[in-house]
Amino acid sequence: MGELLYEGKAKKMFTTDDPFVLRVEYKNDATAFNGQKKAKFEGKGRLNNAICTKIFHVLQQKNLPTHYLETISETEQLVKSVDIVPIEVVVRNIVAGSLAKRLGLDEGTDLGKTIVEFYYKSDDLGDPMINDDHALAIKIATEEELTEIRRQALAVNKVLQELFSEAGILLVDFKLEFGKLKETGAIVLADEISPDTCRLWDKETHEKLDKDVFRRNIADLPETYEKLLSRLEAVR
Amino acid sequence: MGELLYEGKAKKMFTTDDPFVLRVEYKNDATAFNGQKKAKFEGKGRLNNAICTKIFHVLQQKNLPTHYLETISETEQLVKSVDIVPIEVVVRNIVAGSLAKRLGLDEGTDLGKTIVEFYYKSDDLGDPMINDDHALAIKIATEEELTEIRRQALAVNKVLQELFSEAGILLVDFKLEFGKLKETGAIVLADEISPDTCRLWDKETHEKLDKDVFRRNIADLPETYEKLLSRLEAVR
Ligand SMILES: Nc1ncnc2c1ncn2[C@@H]1O[C@H](COP(=O)(O)OP(=O)(O)OP(=O)(O)O)[C@@H](O)[C@H]1O
Ligand SMILES: Nc1ncnc2c1ncn2[C@@H]1O[C@H](COP(=O)(O)OP(=O)(O)OP(=O)(O)O)[C@@H](O)[C@H]1O
Ligand SMILES: [Mg+2]
Ligand SMILES: [Mg+2]
Repeated sequence: MGELLYEGKAKKMFTTDDPFVLRVEYKNDATAFNGQKKAKFEGKGRLNNAICTKIFHVLQQKNLPTHYLETISETEQLVKSVDIVPIEVVVRNIVAGSLAKRLGLDEGTDLGKTIVEFYYKSDDLGDPMINDDHALAIKIATEEELTEIRRQALAVNKVLQELFSEAGILLVDFKLEFGKLKETGAIVLADEISPDTCRLWDKETHEKLDKDVFRRNIADLPETYEKLLSRLEAVR
Repeated sequence: MGELLYEGKAKKMFTTDDPFVLRVEYKNDATAFNGQKKAKFEGKGRLNNAICTKIFHVLQQKNLPTHYLETISETEQLVKSVDIVPIEVVVRNIVAGSLAKRLGLDEGTDLGKTIVEFYYKSDDLGDPMINDDHALAIKIATEEELTEIRRQALAVNKVLQELFSEAGILLVDFKLEFGKLKETGAIVLADEISPDTCRLWDKETHEKLDKDVFRRNIADLPETYEKLLSRLEAVR
């Protein structure tokens, strides 16, 4: 069954017989505020796996390179093993969360222009925001890799804005992680895209369809994710 | 004598008979930690005016565009009136201050690569760090202006690294402000460059020759600035 390589807050990563392939298991745990708030939700792993699978399929159809290979059970995927670039890439279309605080803007303001932010993945440092010069100075990516990451992040944004729009949903913001393929070093989208890592609002009512319902005690998490999944499944 | 246009923490800005020209008066006040720590130092205004004058003269010789016109008294300069771009541009050659915290690096580490950081000039928001996308989204500068600001900041860094090096001093980091000329909108270096806005260390001993002696209660401020001035005056 492979060895447990890493247990994170939301997923377990296992080795497989193929050194280039990992097995991801989506857990039922939800965490917020750097793990300070925690809970378990029956069905969360299944729902995130299903939603993420749908999203990776759509990205594949649009020829965007991802680590995704196949979904092998209700809670498991096979993915290409990558060297994760230790940058959390946040893409924002509408003001929410930390951006509202940083710039003193109202939540819900349309940005007009998509904002890409880089955060250095470091629990010890509290994932600080960085710019390209910082990333280059600490050698976590090259200039070419940063350009490619930004290009792919914007391309993913375009595809997902369209997908969610067809489901009557605004893609407010989301977090991506990229990795380098073991064989070629090519940059591909890795990790997950799910309601844990996106802000998604109903177009008309601005009802939240993402982990903010848990962060802010707004609604039941599995019910919310179930609603999101059925709305996505209704598309095409 | 002109009207007081703005009194800041370190300088007073006055209008003159010429609508394109302002008079800057360097004050004796020193502040740190967003104005929480304050003191008055006899001679500080004179020393900063002299040091800043020396620096603007050197930049002028190298044909770098600045707001500087002339020094008219021990504590006063005439400068071109500009529309300040509300970005504090920080240039870093060696790790110190907030960068040490942000990236978990030791103070004094040579960065190998110069880092340019942008902070949104907003007292209410506490001068948050921003990236180019933020600046564009809130329309405080255009893409061309950001490119020009970064280019000029790096050019200033080169000239000042050389100047200070000849005085036996390491240019650790410094803060710049740029403005747009009223007539043409052209970007020029504005505000001041002084030991209030630079970190300067003796090459051999790493003795601090800047406002950190006040921030961290290390040495007498006027004595330190006097020492810096004489070392700069000894150059060429
Ligand atoms: N294709 C991949 N190859 C290797 N590692 C991956 C791949 N995709 C994702 N990862 C990494 O596997 C882990 C997934 O676990 P999870 O998302 O639960 O982590 P986490 O608790 O968010 O912690 P962190 O992201 O800070 O490591 C993450 O560290 C992620 O960067
Ligand atoms: N050429 C110029 N034309 C117009 N304004 C200028 C020019 N050069 C500098 N300034 C502005 O004049 C003020 C100088 O005062 P001072 O440096 O004491 O301000 P401060 O207390 O640092 O506050 P802040 O920089 O936050 O406004 C600054 O606001 C600076 O941006
Ligand atoms: Mg994660
Ligand atoms: Mg100032």
